[in-house]
Amino acid sequence: MSDLRVAVLGVGVMGADHVARLTTRISGARVSVVNDYVTEKAEQIAAAIPGCRAVVDPLDAIADPDVDAVVLATPGPTHEKQLLACLEHGKPVLCEKPLTTDVETALGVVKREAELGRRLIQVGFMRRFDHEYAQLKALLDGGELGRALVLHCAHRNPAVPPTFDSAMVVRDSLVHEVDVTRFLFDEEITSIQIIKPAANPGAPQGLADPQIAIMRTASGRHVDVELFVTTGVAYEVRTEVVAEKGSAMIGLDVGLIRKRGDGTWGGQITPGFRERFGQAYDTEFQRWVDAVAAGAGSGDHTDGPTAWDGYAAAAVCEAGVESLNSGLPVDVTMVDRASIPGA
Amino acid sequence: MSDLRVAVLGVGVMGADHVARLTTRISGARVSVVNDYVTEKAEQIAAAIPGCRAVVDPLDAIADPDVDAVVLATPGPTHEKQLLACLEHGKPVLCEKPLTTDVETALGVVKREAELGRRLIQVGFMRRFDHEYAQLKALLDGGELGRALVLHCAHRNPAVPPTFDSAMVVRDSLVHEVDVTRFLFDEEITSIQIIKPAANPGAPQGLADPQIAIMRTASGRHVDVELFVTTGVAYEVRTEVVAEKGSAMIGLDVGLIRKRGDGTWGGQITPGFRERFGQAYDTEFQRWVDAVAAGAGSGDHTDGPTAWDGYAAAAVCEAGVESLNSGLPVDVTMVDRASIPGA
Amino acid sequence: MSDLRVAVLGVGVMGADHVARLTTRISGARVSVVNDYVTEKAEQIAAAIPGCRAVVDPLDAIADPDVDAVVLATPGPTHEKQLLACLEHGKPVLCEKPLTTDVETALGVVKREAELGRRLIQVGFMRRFDHEYAQLKALLDGGELGRALVLHCAHRNPAVPPTFDSAMVVRDSLVHEVDVTRFLFDEEITSIQIIKPAANPGAPQGLADPQIAIMRTASGRHVDVELFVTTGVAYEVRTEVVAEKGSAMIGLDVGLIRKRGDGTWGGQITPGFRERFGQAYDTEFQRWVDAVAAGAGSGDHTDGPTAWDGYAAAAVCEAGVESLNSGLPVDVTMVDRASIPGA
Amino acid sequence: MSDLRVAVLGVGVMGADHVARLTTRISGARVSVVNDYVTEKAEQIAAAIPGCRAVVDPLDAIADPDVDAVVLATPGPTHEKQLLACLEHGKPVLCEKPLTTDVETALGVVKREAELGRRLIQVGFMRRFDHEYAQLKALLDGGELGRALVLHCAHRNPAVPPTFDSAMVVRDSLVHEVDVTRFLFDEEITSIQIIKPAANPGAPQGLADPQIAIMRTASGRHVDVELFVTTGVAYEVRTEVVAEKGSAMIGLDVGLIRKRGDGTWGGQITPGFRERFGQAYDTEFQRWVDAVAAGAGSGDHTDGPTAWDGYAAAAVCEAGVESLNSGLPVDVTMVDRASIPGA
Repeated sequence: MSDLRVAVLGVGVMGADHVARLTTRISGARVSVVNDYVTEKAEQIAAAIPGCRAVVDPLDAIADPDVDAVVLATPGPTHEKQLLACLEHGKPVLCEKPLTTDVETALGVVKREAELGRRLIQVGFMRRFDHEYAQLKALLDGGELGRALVLHCAHRNPAVPPTFDSAMVVRDSLVHEVDVTRFLFDEEITSIQIIKPAANPGAPQGLADPQIAIMRTASGRHVDVELFVTTGVAYEVRTEVVAEKGSAMIGLDVGLIRKRGDGTWGGQITPGFRERFGQAYDTEFQRWVDAVAAGAGSGDHTDGPTAWDGYAAAAVCEAGVESLNSGLPVDVTMVDRASIPGA
Repeated sequence: MSDLRVAVLGVGVMGADHVARLTTRISGARVSVVNDYVTEKAEQIAAAIPGCRAVVDPLDAIADPDVDAVVLATPGPTHEKQLLACLEHGKPVLCEKPLTTDVETALGVVKREAELGRRLIQVGFMRRFDHEYAQLKALLDGGELGRALVLHCAHRNPAVPPTFDSAMVVRDSLVHEVDVTRFLFDEEITSIQIIKPAANPGAPQGLADPQIAIMRTASGRHVDVELFVTTGVAYEVRTEVVAEKGSAMIGLDVGLIRKRGDGTWGGQITPGFRERFGQAYDTEFQRWVDAVAAGAGSGDHTDGPTAWDGYAAAAVCEAGVESLNSGLPVDVTMVDRASIPGA
Repeated sequence: MSDLRVAVLGVGVMGADHVARLTTRISGARVSVVNDYVTEKAEQIAAAIPGCRAVVDPLDAIADPDVDAVVLATPGPTHEKQLLACLEHGKPVLCEKPLTTDVETALGVVKREAELGRRLIQVGFMRRFDHEYAQLKALLDGGELGRALVLHCAHRNPAVPPTFDSAMVVRDSLVHEVDVTRFLFDEEITSIQIIKPAANPGAPQGLADPQIAIMRTASGRHVDVELFVTTGVAYEVRTEVVAEKGSAMIGLDVGLIRKRGDGTWGGQITPGFRERFGQAYDTEFQRWVDAVAAGAGSGDHTDGPTAWDGYAAAAVCEAGVESLNSGLPVDVTMVDRASIPGA
Repeated sequence: MSDLRVAVLGVGVMGADHVARLTTRISGARVSVVNDYVTEKAEQIAAAIPGCRAVVDPLDAIADPDVDAVVLATPGPTHEKQLLACLEHGKPVLCEKPLTTDVETALGVVKREAELGRRLIQVGFMRRFDHEYAQLKALLDGGELGRALVLHCAHRNPAVPPTFDSAMVVRDSLVHEVDVTRFLFDEEITSIQIIKPAANPGAPQGLADPQIAIMRTASGRHVDVELFVTTGVAYEVRTEVVAEKGSAMIGLDVGLIRKRGDGTWGGQITPGFRERFGQAYDTEFQRWVDAVAAGAGSGDHTDGPTAWDGYAAAAVCEAGVESLNSGLPVDVTMVDRASIPGA
């Protein structure tokens, strides 16, 4: 009944959110170690939490005997080494996307975990824990709508940092719809095309925005995604499944407060990902903490997307970036999952 | 196959609308005579319509051999005399509410028409022709929701003229919900109470606004109406029926354009009664014109609310004004309809 | 002030609707002649309308001195000859889509009308008269949302006749979104691709359904259209414009009656095109009748899409059918409008 | 940093929910003691939670040195004695409504706590923690809508237990809207009238259902509440504030999944209070646990409605039951808050 001791690596915006989450909202866990390449930030955060220390080296943090499990919110390029260290020490890890920054190393991580015969890696595709996506999945699995045929998505951000480039629209934004597609349809994506319409006059010079992604799944289902990251408006994530016997849409933003004034009706649009997916992150973490605690027996310390899901997303995004450059449809290259026993 | 020749009496805002309606949107009718106590206005309108004359005296207009039917958009105090003239000349008449300005004269008109044995008078409660109300009525009559139990209404205007007083909120605004209640529930209203909450700071001095009307029908159903005529916002007419097996609401203003900008979603609220009920007026007039043409045989020249409906509305509003003054519930006094054969 | 005398050619489902419309709901017009290749049907309809005759030959009907203007609801293959006859007799004509069945003959009609120097042909793209589309157009033209960037459309039918084939999805269904795109964006479509996802198990053997159309306009705007004609559900036409400063959606079907029963909320989905676009057809016809009457002076007898709009739609659909067969994007081939003075 | 040790008294449906909440979802607390008059149930629940014991006597549970704070989910008649015991032992307590079962004893509890000079009692009006109500409150407090004038509420349950009687509609259902009114308007309710329309044919014999409550606040604002506890449909809680410069509505159930099938659009209605207010309970408990932990210094161990709020609700409901019986408006009798220093 003692709390799970968690090391949080990387305490930028997202990591600091996770520290707060584990400290004040999640039952059965506490943050025992924090780490960041900006040492002062880690120390500042550690100081505010009883029983928490800052550790300078991320690999030391993973190995620390005061750590039962690890949350990775570090930059993508450091993930491979840190994930392998978690595997070596047998420590369950919740890894923010991406799994790693390229398909080869992602596959290496998948294989290493499979060899060990224990499931230790969960990837942070939090939308699977959002109650709207969860209900949509349940609706599809319940069979009431028949076979799903088409998926329409819109993914809109009010703004992005100046460093955001066209490939990041694919790797950082589209990656969520890639996972949503695989989650809802339970099959792999086999091809992808990125269309670049005339750009938003308000987008930074050189940024292809909006982009339209066209994907096809193994059984021939169609997916389209509008990616638009400089809307200036709000955070809008909308998903519609069109199926044999009906369709369903989530994310319409029509529910909450309907106020009227100055001749219009309407309400506030969700301003950012925290407001839209805060509940999803909380649920993701609570269920991960519970699964890690429960995993001692079964060897499965996850309750959500696995390393394979991280690898598959990387493979689709790699093909997406190739299409972004060429303008042509690109087939997704992936190994056969059955060729890696345990993956 | 020649067009019905209509005299429009009173060409203020509403009457001029009706002239335009009959001239440009209604099939099978034309305006042959117009009349107004402001003679120049009538002449100006007549001049713009081929085959139309201005007639100075309203009773002459009714009697004119070039007139097949009459539309009354004159002030309420003139209605009694004009309606009786229409009856004497056997001319079908569409009378804007009120039927007359008091219960006694309204009852006199009902009795006179009943004696003649022909149905010539239709009262302009246009909401019955609005497609939302019509669908709600059909839903209730279809039986899917079981017995209707409660009716909630909101009736909001952005503003009213300076001459609008507290009793006019009852007589000119609430009268529509009185007719809606009788239309939807097919029974009479037996008591009414007007509640005066603390007034809107923005309402003119002395105007009780908002007002809340509480009504009870013959079988014990409850109706409440929020009347708020200085909202500064828009024209909002909302009606919800709560029934044994479900409920239904119309008038929510959520349909049309959903635009997003500046962090909100929403749409335009209906600005006025023309936008909200323009379709209802058109349908009312087309069906009235058709009914008048068809009535030569049957003796029934109406297709909508009758003189009795006008009398009943007057009786409820009279009790409402009494309650407005006393603050207490007031029973509605009406004669027994069966006592007037033909009413 | 005498009514416009209209000949309606073709009195199938659509043509009979137009006869009823002109006879009972449109002001200032009447049907003087009807024609159909099923002679009995034309005679039956004519018999029910005072002052109306059936004429056996469509070209005789056009030439008839008792006919001021013509409505074409005949099969597409007969349009070319009938339109040219209308032009020769100087009779204004409202032609249901398609203008003609191929691009070459459509262009011929455009050129012939241009040579005559009078605008006599209006094409029946009725969505431009739907109040939702009209408001969306006004919103875009008003500038509040900035530059429009992307258009998402869904066009769903509950079912289609057994003769409906994959190319008709493009020619008969997509053609409306082709016109909507040109109407909203005020520019030509330059390329089109039709994607064929795995088919709906409930669609007839051989029918590619759903289909996804991807179009690009002259200035590089992106349009996608989901076409799904065997949904088994209802008639759903939804359009969303994504613009620089916000987005707007029409067709969501959330407005009217919100009933609750058996644990769900919701309302009736529009069952067919009559319920969805009945108002649009009425408005289209009233405005056309008014324009024909007014055109005597100016030589322009139209108030809506012209022969050029019919030609442009044909050119895009022809490229669409080519893409349907090849699976590849196809550039749209059109003559330069400036090369045809008066077009 | 050690967890708050909580005793949960009463482990029926609600209490068992709270045990699960504290054990699996709330950070910083654990259930150390459970109690129920059905001893076996308490023992069964205790057995499933590490470090938790069943204690037979509720007063022993309160006094237990292994208990830092208390949750009361026991029947109302036991509250007075248990609350006074909590006060004597200085233990913070979260008391499910009602505070006590009559106004006199409720006032006694208020006075006793005030004498002690520490705020230990929080009452479980969880709607204040619901994010929709919280946003509505923030909207009103922000001033954007001007002065609030009218409150319309609907409170609908699909069904109630056979023991539910007409007075319980007031005491157990309306009590929530009483607190919502006081929360949103920040003032006391001064009069109440319960209207009994003709009853739902499907309601149990003798149960007045629906009921309409009409309330007036100190400054003259109007509140109406439709209470309907045998709808057979779902759990619907809707609240609309009408204010000087606009209105706002929550609880419309239009957001989540919009599916279409069989010709209707819509979604699932919230089936019960757990689905509607689960988030509110979680937030209430997390904030209460945090406030208890933080209260050591300030002496205020609450973060939500206080004993006074429980007393005020009792006073309004007592007047409501009197009106239910008499059919007349009843003034609410309350002591002056200023007469009890510290209340």
